[in-house]
Amino acid sequence: MPASPSLSPVDGTQRLHNFSAGPGTLPTSVLQEVRDELPVYGTAGASIMEISHRSADYDAVEQSARRHLRRLLGLGDDWHILFLQGGASMQFHQVPLNFLPPDGHADYVLTGRWSVKALREAKLLGTAHTAATAEDTDFTTIPDRDTWDLSPEAAYLHITSNNTVHGTQFSGDPEAEVPIVTDASSEILSRPMNLDPYGLIYAGAQKNMGPAGVTVVLIRDSFLARRNDDLPTMLDYGTHAERRFNTPPVFPIYVVEKVLRWLRDQGGVEAMHTLNQQKAALLYNRIDRTDFYEGIVARNARSTMNPVFRLHDDALQPRFLQEAKAEGLVNLKGHRSVGGLRASLYNALPMEAVEALVDFMDAFEQRHG
Amino acid sequence: MPASPSLSPVDGTQRLHNFSAGPGTLPTSVLQEVRDELPVYGTAGASIMEISHRSADYDAVEQSARRHLRRLLGLGDDWHILFLQGGASMQFHQVPLNFLPPDGHADYVLTGRWSVKALREAKLLGTAHTAATAEDTDFTTIPDRDTWDLSPEAAYLHITSNNTVHGTQFSGDPEAEVPIVTDASSEILSRPMNLDPYGLIYAGAQKNMGPAGVTVVLIRDSFLARRNDDLPTMLDYGTHAERRFNTPPVFPIYVVEKVLRWLRDQGGVEAMHTLNQQKAALLYNRIDRTDFYEGIVARNARSTMNPVFRLHDDALQPRFLQEAKAEGLVNLKGHRSVGGLRASLYNALPMEAVEALVDFMDAFEQRHG
Repeated sequence: MPASPSLSPVDGTQRLHNFSAGPGTLPTSVLQEVRDELPVYGTAGASIMEISHRSADYDAVEQSARRHLRRLLGLGDDWHILFLQGGASMQFHQVPLNFLPPDGHADYVLTGRWSVKALREAKLLGTAHTAATAEDTDFTTIPDRDTWDLSPEAAYLHITSNNTVHGTQFSGDPEAEVPIVTDASSEILSRPMNLDPYGLIYAGAQKNMGPAGVTVVLIRDSFLARRNDDLPTMLDYGTHAERRFNTPPVFPIYVVEKVLRWLRDQGGVEAMHTLNQQKAALLYNRIDRTDFYEGIVARNARSTMNPVFRLHDDALQPRFLQEAKAEGLVNLKGHRSVGGLRASLYNALPMEAVEALVDFMDAFEQRHG
Repeated sequence: MPASPSLSPVDGTQRLHNFSAGPGTLPTSVLQEVRDELPVYGTAGASIMEISHRSADYDAVEQSARRHLRRLLGLGDDWHILFLQGGASMQFHQVPLNFLPPDGHADYVLTGRWSVKALREAKLLGTAHTAATAEDTDFTTIPDRDTWDLSPEAAYLHITSNNTVHGTQFSGDPEAEVPIVTDASSEILSRPMNLDPYGLIYAGAQKNMGPAGVTVVLIRDSFLARRNDDLPTMLDYGTHAERRFNTPPVFPIYVVEKVLRWLRDQGGVEAMHTLNQQKAALLYNRIDRTDFYEGIVARNARSTMNPVFRLHDDALQPRFLQEAKAEGLVNLKGHRSVGGLRASLYNALPMEAVEALVDFMDAFEQRHG
């Protein structure tokens, strides 16, 4: 199994080129740090998992994560940074629970499986409108901003900025009269953001930021102030904006902090955006170069994070996956609801992995084309 | 800093005797296994954190955790095992959301800080009665079972079986006409349980079972069937009883699985119970032997997991903590709301740690008594 020198094994066991859509690949250096800090973290006399979440050692980790996130995304002092649990799926409930007023409504743009789920949870609690939907194209497009049916009275507008399952992505940050709430799980920190349109940004960490088990929620203070009264304590964003209320998911946050420092060392989100565009361009160019491979989604909706494609001859797919694996290229199968192939190109996936994939795609076409 | 040979350092950095109340100490062998499986897990080509939660590799881990938990606690096929997020604090909301009927009520026994919080969340949703409270003794007692004011019409009876903050514990499993819901966070797996009285058992993992970030919920099928309609998907226990709905907290569950295997190798909960009683007896006997140290709670309510005590001369406490730390005995400070000292004796804390503590207490008394 060939692998590049920078992915050299530590344990005699090979790290492969990992295109997993999530939980996704992490920087090898981060994993080495975690390893080095077991079973004892610094001078704590125990691992980071075994000490109080109110200890100075853990507090320094969480504050550092917060500080790096603030700098990387350019979050001003009017933004709260929350480390919650339950993933995006819990946010589908928590957002309307906090912000859908009993006598009001919210607007949702449907661009895939996850936004449909988000809308469903909002409707369990109150009134939510579909402002636009790409369902008619099987979610292979992003509806034109001009066509969105938005209400200036909506409490918020909800979007899913990158659609992991379908491989589509909004181009940049849309604008609206009302605060936008975005599920940025699979694109957060992959590009600089214009924060102006947003009231709340949420992201499960396990795609571009760390391991599963922590959800980052960024809330603008003026939006937070609009939330409903008498909320369950744990689901009230205000609880967590004010103080560390209960035991946080210590280990996932600890890894996120390392990923954020790694990201800073790579040059931050600007440098990462340039690299991510190069990675995506390399793969999409290979897909488009011949008819042997086919893109699945509209070109203007293509995701830099989760390119989806298929073989013109679908019957070759099992062989593609098998031969790719033999070359050390793994987790390339598309989502079970869509089929085909998917190569997730998150921040921690290096350019050389995409080069190896493209080389393999060339060779596979030569053998089977 | 003296430490016993079995706690020998791996990295040149010492593991200390860690009496943390939570997140609590873990078996050193478990941390070694985690370390050995970084940055590559088995043949996955990536760490356990970087692969799909629907992969065969991760699935085997979660199924193994489930199997061991079932065997260790003797859970029959009529019990569902759920790995959720949000800690006990989320359960304070989720339990009444699912099981408090719009036209009914639930009973709560108040034995400390956490049960008071649980009651508060239930009251946000409906009617909840205080069946008994130890508030008049500053939660240094467990109200006699005979005095509980229980209603046979209650949807459930909620208890907190071990009170981490106050250092009290129920003696065994109480009985009631209605299903009991128990917060067993700080005593689960420390003793065999009589499951008959229970409808639901919940426990944050970070005290006796693993790292923070996963909450184990055990629900009897007949109790699950009684839940309310139209629940938010993520907060409906039924969602998680039926299938793996969303991305679970992979790494915390992976560590829990290792702790459960370790526990089996120690002889299971029966052997652990014997050892835990010996550990607690050693410490309580030392506390009681002279007037230099004082127990804080009623003798018949003393916790085997979280003994709390203080120095007769309170002014000596800072020196006690300082000298203990110099001997490698750490995290002995009582909860900020109670003060004094607390030595949490969770499963993973070895007898030799208690012996070292007791030896230190003797020496400290000789020096300062």
